[in-house]
Amino acid sequence: MSSPSPHLIPSRAAKRAHFDTETIFPILDEALFCTISYVSDNLPFSIPTAFVRYEGKMYVHGSVGSHFIREIEKGIPVCISVTLMDALVVAKSAFHHSVNYRSVILFGKAEKIEDPAEKTKAFEWLTNRMVPGSWDYLRPIKESEVKKTTVLAFTLDEASAKVRTGAPIDDEEDQSLPIWSGLIPLETKRMPPLADELSTNIPLPPHLGAV
Amino acid sequence: MSSPSPHLIPSRAAKRAHFDTETIFPILDEALFCTISYVSDNLPFSIPTAFVRYEGKMYVHGSVGSHFIREIEKGIPVCISVTLMDALVVAKSAFHHSVNYRSVILFGKAEKIEDPAEKTKAFEWLTNRMVPGSWDYLRPIKESEVKKTTVLAFTLDEASAKVRTGAPIDDEEDQSLPIWSGLIPLETKRMPPLADELSTNIPLPPHLGAV
Repeated sequence: MSSPSPHLIPSRAAKRAHFDTETIFPILDEALFCTISYVSDNLPFSIPTAFVRYEGKMYVHGSVGSHFIREIEKGIPVCISVTLMDALVVAKSAFHHSVNYRSVILFGKAEKIEDPAEKTKAFEWLTNRMVPGSWDYLRPIKESEVKKTTVLAFTLDEASAKVRTGAPIDDEEDQSLPIWSGLIPLETKRMPPLADELSTNIPLPPHLGAV
Repeated sequence: MSSPSPHLIPSRAAKRAHFDTETIFPILDEALFCTISYVSDNLPFSIPTAFVRYEGKMYVHGSVGSHFIREIEKGIPVCISVTLMDALVVAKSAFHHSVNYRSVILFGKAEKIEDPAEKTKAFEWLTNRMVPGSWDYLRPIKESEVKKTTVLAFTLDEASAKVRTGAPIDDEEDQSLPIWSGLIPLETKRMPPLADELSTNIPLPPHLGAV
């Protein structure tokens, strides 16, 4: 990771900022979507989308006909935001309420992956990211499906993480008040798989039994 | 809600788009954060932040010293994105994998709330949104705290929702394959509250026992 550009340094809570892959990668590997922002006609647009990190890059995909994909594949500047909410931070005063979170902001430009073999690799990573171990079990991808889908990569060179952890920080004069303070942890969980109508008689494969 | 502007009509899956408050409000009332995008020096920036919907507006707040708040309080165009992930949609082919989600996109400009009483109301909504029923229990807010915090409102006039529900949609020729397909539901839950060091002897108030 290169040293941070000035626009990566947050104005508030600069001590919460991190630029190391040890902080950034696990956040990207846990999140189920990112929000990509870009500028068109001087106006901001943003769209949530699935992604996968592989080594030092983030990969997103979309239909070749998608307006959003066609805008950002040109290589215009984008800002990608990934946010995980870990806990509500409940203080003795409303003012000191906060959230424990882990977030990543990435500035960059799309690199369009043109090589079909490389695109197929990205589909494998994306699919296994969503459902670990599933790629080899599924009906193999077709050449026509690879053609119909655009894959874009973004290097993580200009990425930074912001993390808040720990207890609320109340004003000193409030700390002895008989008002409850602490954390309400938040958890996002994968629930047991539900078969669709076509699969009621198909055994759940091992890679799905484990989620 | 006014009739949709052309830039609210998505290029793909237009049938997933909704403009009615019956769809939009519950998404905003369930989500714990939004991502606000804006343009500065022709570059896109985005930041995740807490918010509350009250009637036909979304309210966000931040320190008067926050760079982000000072940019958007000028009334520049913003794009606000809210995303809930409901399920991973597991098809028989990688190509037809999808996600069941509910999302809202809002285009607008900030209206800065200047009246201290109105600002205090917004803090009450924000606090009760995060921890229902907590506002009246907390140490009352101080005039100085209201002064230190900026409150911005956005009307929901230019908001639209996109929703995907239901089973995977596989190609007809794949539907008889003995490959499992269905949904992996996702759930975000509030876990039991954890007292901090200052509160180990303070009884959990009823409004927190219920989360």
